[in-house]
Amino acid sequence: MSAQEWATQAANKILNRCDQLSKLTSMEGGIERDYLSPQMAKAYELTAGWLNEVGIATHIDQAGNLVGRLEGKEPGLPALVLGSHLDSVPDAGKYDGILGVVTAVSVVEHLAKTGANKKLPFAIEVLGFGDEEGARFGATLLGSYAFGGGWRDEWLGLADRNGVTMRQAFVDFGLDPDEVGQAARKREDYIGYLEFHIEQGPILEQRNRALSSVTSIAAASRYMVTVNGMSCHIATPYDLRHDALTAAAEIISAIDDISQKSGTRANVGEICAEPGGVNVIAGKTMFSLDVRAGNDALRDEVFKQIWQQANNIAASRHVSVSHTQIHTANAVQCDPFLRSCIEEGIEQAEGKEAFGLVSYPGHDGMAVAELLPIAMLYVRCKGGISHSPYESVRADDVAYGTQAFEQAVLNVAQRISSIK
Amino acid sequence: MSAQEWATQAANKILNRCDQLSKLTSMEGGIERDYLSPQMAKAYELTAGWLNEVGIATHIDQAGNLVGRLEGKEPGLPALVLGSHLDSVPDAGKYDGILGVVTAVSVVEHLAKTGANKKLPFAIEVLGFGDEEGARFGATLLGSYAFGGGWRDEWLGLADRNGVTMRQAFVDFGLDPDEVGQAARKREDYIGYLEFHIEQGPILEQRNRALSSVTSIAAASRYMVTVNGMSCHIATPYDLRHDALTAAAEIISAIDDISQKSGTRANVGEICAEPGGVNVIAGKTMFSLDVRAGNDALRDEVFKQIWQQANNIAASRHVSVSHTQIHTANAVQCDPFLRSCIEEGIEQAEGKEAFGLVSYPGHDGMAVAELLPIAMLYVRCKGGISHSPYESVRADDVAYGTQAFEQAVLNVAQRISSIK
Repeated sequence: MSAQEWATQAANKILNRCDQLSKLTSMEGGIERDYLSPQMAKAYELTAGWLNEVGIATHIDQAGNLVGRLEGKEPGLPALVLGSHLDSVPDAGKYDGILGVVTAVSVVEHLAKTGANKKLPFAIEVLGFGDEEGARFGATLLGSYAFGGGWRDEWLGLADRNGVTMRQAFVDFGLDPDEVGQAARKREDYIGYLEFHIEQGPILEQRNRALSSVTSIAAASRYMVTVNGMSCHIATPYDLRHDALTAAAEIISAIDDISQKSGTRANVGEICAEPGGVNVIAGKTMFSLDVRAGNDALRDEVFKQIWQQANNIAASRHVSVSHTQIHTANAVQCDPFLRSCIEEGIEQAEGKEAFGLVSYPGHDGMAVAELLPIAMLYVRCKGGISHSPYESVRADDVAYGTQAFEQAVLNVAQRISSIK
Repeated sequence: MSAQEWATQAANKILNRCDQLSKLTSMEGGIERDYLSPQMAKAYELTAGWLNEVGIATHIDQAGNLVGRLEGKEPGLPALVLGSHLDSVPDAGKYDGILGVVTAVSVVEHLAKTGANKKLPFAIEVLGFGDEEGARFGATLLGSYAFGGGWRDEWLGLADRNGVTMRQAFVDFGLDPDEVGQAARKREDYIGYLEFHIEQGPILEQRNRALSSVTSIAAASRYMVTVNGMSCHIATPYDLRHDALTAAAEIISAIDDISQKSGTRANVGEICAEPGGVNVIAGKTMFSLDVRAGNDALRDEVFKQIWQQANNIAASRHVSVSHTQIHTANAVQCDPFLRSCIEEGIEQAEGKEAFGLVSYPGHDGMAVAELLPIAMLYVRCKGGISHSPYESVRADDVAYGTQAFEQAVLNVAQRISSIK
């Protein structure tokens, strides 16, 4: 069977497995799978089963990540990691994160079945990170930070929307919250990190291409913004109101305007007004803010402009504004060596010249990059739509991607061997 | 003791009783008392106790309103109703509604103690309505509509934020939901309705006056507005987004602008975005809208302008909008005879010429007016602030108001007697 034939069959299996995982959800009529949730435990069980079937050992690490390890030409070699995440946003699609893990499973399955792993100068670890999205506790990339050594114990105090602390969630998941720090890997045990992911943007579609590499992952900052006014009765004349929601609305429009003009990306996805009465002027409004830019300086400049404008609006509407940063990540450059192995894989699979894109979405690679060189392979998704039930990929694109991803692993092996 | 001396003492007692009632709350650190709630049962017990102490019989009617009845010169005469409501908005002040019930209690207490009731050509009923604000089930004026004959059995299907239906809430409160309609009073059993209430606006303060009558209660309409877009990842370029929250923000700004320019009142007090992820563009946003105007035509014109603008914004932002009307009430004129009895009472108490104001807030009188002639007495509140913990009244204003309110009752008696 040619690599292309194998990849075409594998793509069908991969899409079927994404369907199976999409059923493990806490949301009626949609997909939602949180960090350390019962649904995540089931997703691990299912995924581990696929790996165990071909003799690949699996375990769950101290941070609640799923790990599968296929040894190379001798046991105990440093590992190349193929990873992505198995958690989701609320009302998610089937592919964000999931596709990367499931494709990595197919690649190691193929290498194990054909015995090709026995020639590799490294082991391969499949990583299914437990948290990338941050949907449950607000803080993101929890699984990959724990892997890369960036875990902070203060996160254990964060609570989910039901008031369950992360510490309690670890206990409920059968893990010891005081051991999470031990999930941090040692640099010498690893070669690098490769991630396969849907683009979550429309550029591959616009260029009529299935695949690209990633040049860098954009800088991101997340905030909770609070507008403080004073609640009062709807009868209150406008000049005496301190309306926190009307002020928030004007600030949200300003965020949209400033980020559009700067060519960056921003989003306000959560909002809540208090006390929340039909005939009561809102005394307080809280909303989330996420700002992304191709480099750190631009991201900081955009936030500065937003915050200046928020203060102007607050002053003119007799309210005050404050913010708490809940997440920040600087832009991460992909490793040139690993990136070239991926681009070579793309050319081998697609038969076309490869190119790289900036990634606006954050990825586990950002946290892993604190420990290891990383690179990513992007696959086209329909309309660039992600974080939505409308997320969609083409089977032939997944086949090209799977072939390119396996080829990238072999390219890394070949180049390392030839250097040695 | 002069009427003024009595009123000064009564005002202190009234404010103390408002303090006592404010402790019967379901909200930690604030005031919230819902229709048919355990807190409401306690408020009834406390209020009924004050009436029973001076021999006034009390009961709870089929709609869950508290009723106290003081007979006139002979038993069974048609009654003059002195009423307001005992429920509250979330995070309320101590006086909206409550002050009117407690002042009515003091007036009948005084009439009973002095035996002045034995000369009245009518009975007096004190009404403590169980729902005016609509905080629990969305629909408002439930207690007073039941009293005035405007009750609709379909309301029994409405559910509160915990999913408890009104039907169940009636059962939990010890009432038969199938008997609510029997709370409707007969026209021939009543003379009219007087309500004492804080202004919930700043005009008395601006005019440096304690009291006014009310000329009419403004027209009001309430809606739930839904903006439908499509959720997607923050990486999505702006020209491909269907951002329901950014569109809602622009619509909220337009509502503010249109209602300000038209000299009316509007409010967006509740908002919710779905799916509610920091990095997910909102696919759906729902918010409440309350529109008030001095007359029906102006209210309808303002809503028409708002809705036209909402559709324009939706079209330009590639989303759609829809709305459901959850409440509507036409403007209600106060009865000239009862109003003149109140204005005469104001002149007797304040020693200054009385005047009338339009009421932007809705009141129980709107629902009672379907059965009876109504009139209202307004008392100044600090900064015009209401529906807020900062609601505040002056003791001397309450004393003037209590004196004027009792005097209004006596003026009605005198004029009726002189006509007969």
